[in-house]
Amino acid sequence: MRATVMHGAGDVRIENVADARPIEPTDALVVVSRGCICGSDLWPYRTLEHSENGRRMGHEAIGHVEAVGADVRSLEVGELVVIPFAYSDGTCAFCQEGLHTSCIRGGFLGAGDADGAQAEAVRVPQADGTLVALPAGEDDALTASLLTLSDVMGTGHHAAVAAKVGPGKSVAVVGDGAVGLCGVLAAKRLGAEQIILLGRHPDRIALSREFGATDVVSERGDEAVERVHKLTDGFGVHSALECVGLEQSMVTAVSITRPGGAVGRVGVPQDETMPASQPAFYNNVTINGGPAPVRAYIEELLPDVLEGRIEPGRVFDRVIGLDEVPDGYRAMNEREAIKVMVKP
Amino acid sequence: MRATVMHGAGDVRIENVADARPIEPTDALVVVSRGCICGSDLWPYRTLEHSENGRRMGHEAIGHVEAVGADVRSLEVGELVVIPFAYSDGTCAFCQEGLHTSCIRGGFLGAGDADGAQAEAVRVPQADGTLVALPAGEDDALTASLLTLSDVMGTGHHAAVAAKVGPGKSVAVVGDGAVGLCGVLAAKRLGAEQIILLGRHPDRIALSREFGATDVVSERGDEAVERVHKLTDGFGVHSALECVGLEQSMVTAVSITRPGGAVGRVGVPQDETMPASQPAFYNNVTINGGPAPVRAYIEELLPDVLEGRIEPGRVFDRVIGLDEVPDGYRAMNEREAIKVMVKP
Repeated sequence: MRATVMHGAGDVRIENVADARPIEPTDALVVVSRGCICGSDLWPYRTLEHSENGRRMGHEAIGHVEAVGADVRSLEVGELVVIPFAYSDGTCAFCQEGLHTSCIRGGFLGAGDADGAQAEAVRVPQADGTLVALPAGEDDALTASLLTLSDVMGTGHHAAVAAKVGPGKSVAVVGDGAVGLCGVLAAKRLGAEQIILLGRHPDRIALSREFGATDVVSERGDEAVERVHKLTDGFGVHSALECVGLEQSMVTAVSITRPGGAVGRVGVPQDETMPASQPAFYNNVTINGGPAPVRAYIEELLPDVLEGRIEPGRVFDRVIGLDEVPDGYRAMNEREAIKVMVKP
Repeated sequence: MRATVMHGAGDVRIENVADARPIEPTDALVVVSRGCICGSDLWPYRTLEHSENGRRMGHEAIGHVEAVGADVRSLEVGELVVIPFAYSDGTCAFCQEGLHTSCIRGGFLGAGDADGAQAEAVRVPQADGTLVALPAGEDDALTASLLTLSDVMGTGHHAAVAAKVGPGKSVAVVGDGAVGLCGVLAAKRLGAEQIILLGRHPDRIALSREFGATDVVSERGDEAVERVHKLTDGFGVHSALECVGLEQSMVTAVSITRPGGAVGRVGVPQDETMPASQPAFYNNVTINGGPAPVRAYIEELLPDVLEGRIEPGRVFDRVIGLDEVPDGYRAMNEREAIKVMVKP
């Protein structure tokens, strides 16, 4: 089968690899009907060291169950399923607490030995715990939004939950990538009164407005902090969603959060240390977040997607075939596309 | 009157200064009956740059109201009061949320223009919001515990609240100073099942056992992390109380916290950045805490002190007069005393 393999920074190839198949009795084989490229894929795209074997890429997909291992109980061949980016058994202590990304038998697609989902098919470990069957056929508008439940919408929601967004709260979203935009949507859905997007790309700003952003701040650094304070009676926001992962964005997130507020970070941190330790301390600002347990959120978000109350699939502004994936990386890296869907 | 002035690292003097008196109509003058030296006073004791004017020291005390400004409504001359280390008006948005340390008209004793409490008397701004009258006379055993409500017990409690301690939880306390010991007491009071003290001083360990510690880890660094994991089924604790403020103690706190757990930090951070950003992220560990809004906690903690259910005053293991304050700093800095009470 064909799959995406990254051999180093900027070096993404579509290669013939061994066909995916169930190996463990708890595995399922899923034929990918839609995959996509994640903002977090751009970190290795910029920095990965060259290797001959390369790294299988992709961790977001929906598809049809093609085969299941002997121990898989809850899935039927042919069902349309969402594949959360982290696989999990659904039964361990952490899964029971809703933190499926820390499942003791879990892991991540496109990492270690696991298949990547920018491919024709993918072996999904812990299939019973991981996969969620969808009560829907394929439908282009709905499919895009269902696909976001595998990562980006769940991640935006996680940022909002981690930042303690709730009714009447003021919220700022740092970063106008697809996760940031889903963060806006999640904040709106959770009842935020004021939603400030920090971003500078006109197409993304336009979409954020439709998703619920009430204000846009396109300045950076100290000027951005000053603008957010002006928009919030001088105190800062209750909740800041950090959707980038860089030192500067984290400094901004902490600096725009009011005393006693919270930062929900979902941008994969690129640094060993976290900045603004002292401002966060003196203001009793909570720092929260991490890889989103999207599996835990599907039950909550799915009805809103199925009934059209939220349309996170609108973050996709380009659809490509598998052969075009290398160019899809380029387009996202150059901010030419917000998020690229892959139709293998 | 006489007051403690620090002129530089290691240079603590008792000096004659202008008598404290109400200046603003919202001020009260409190004659200090008991003050004390805080672990956080040791940071300037080690690092303060020399200055001729020096810095007034001390931010914890109980005492008697001697005079009040024209606008003070809730206090009577002669009443015994606790002075929280942060003064606050009790009415602003942050005070109403229970975050009195971020009061918009607030500040800290022993900082800026405010008097220090290692003195014969202290001017307390925002007296109505700040001071809490005590329904108790002076009694040596009780007085020590009442004094801890001005900072150290409220701070240990804040660490526990910030680390989300609750019934049945596993807790680790990093640091065996007076704050750490009060953190143990607070964790026990909030229902923690397992309380692991990370510390190495026999006298402090002994007291922590009486306060509720179930385990003691005297190793440091990676060995301490390994030991805590062994004590907690390999996962780490639900709640880590960071009661030191150094990079290494913060690394330890994050590293011993299980996925989805929380670190409550109350040790004043000595570094601009926070370590272990990536481990905290990948494990969805919450970083919380800051200066404790002890004023908010007095109502909750006071009955337990008055009725003898908790005895945080036991952290005091030396009582000195004002003239001996310089030696009190030395004794705490050399770990000769856990916490020093000052009887001016």
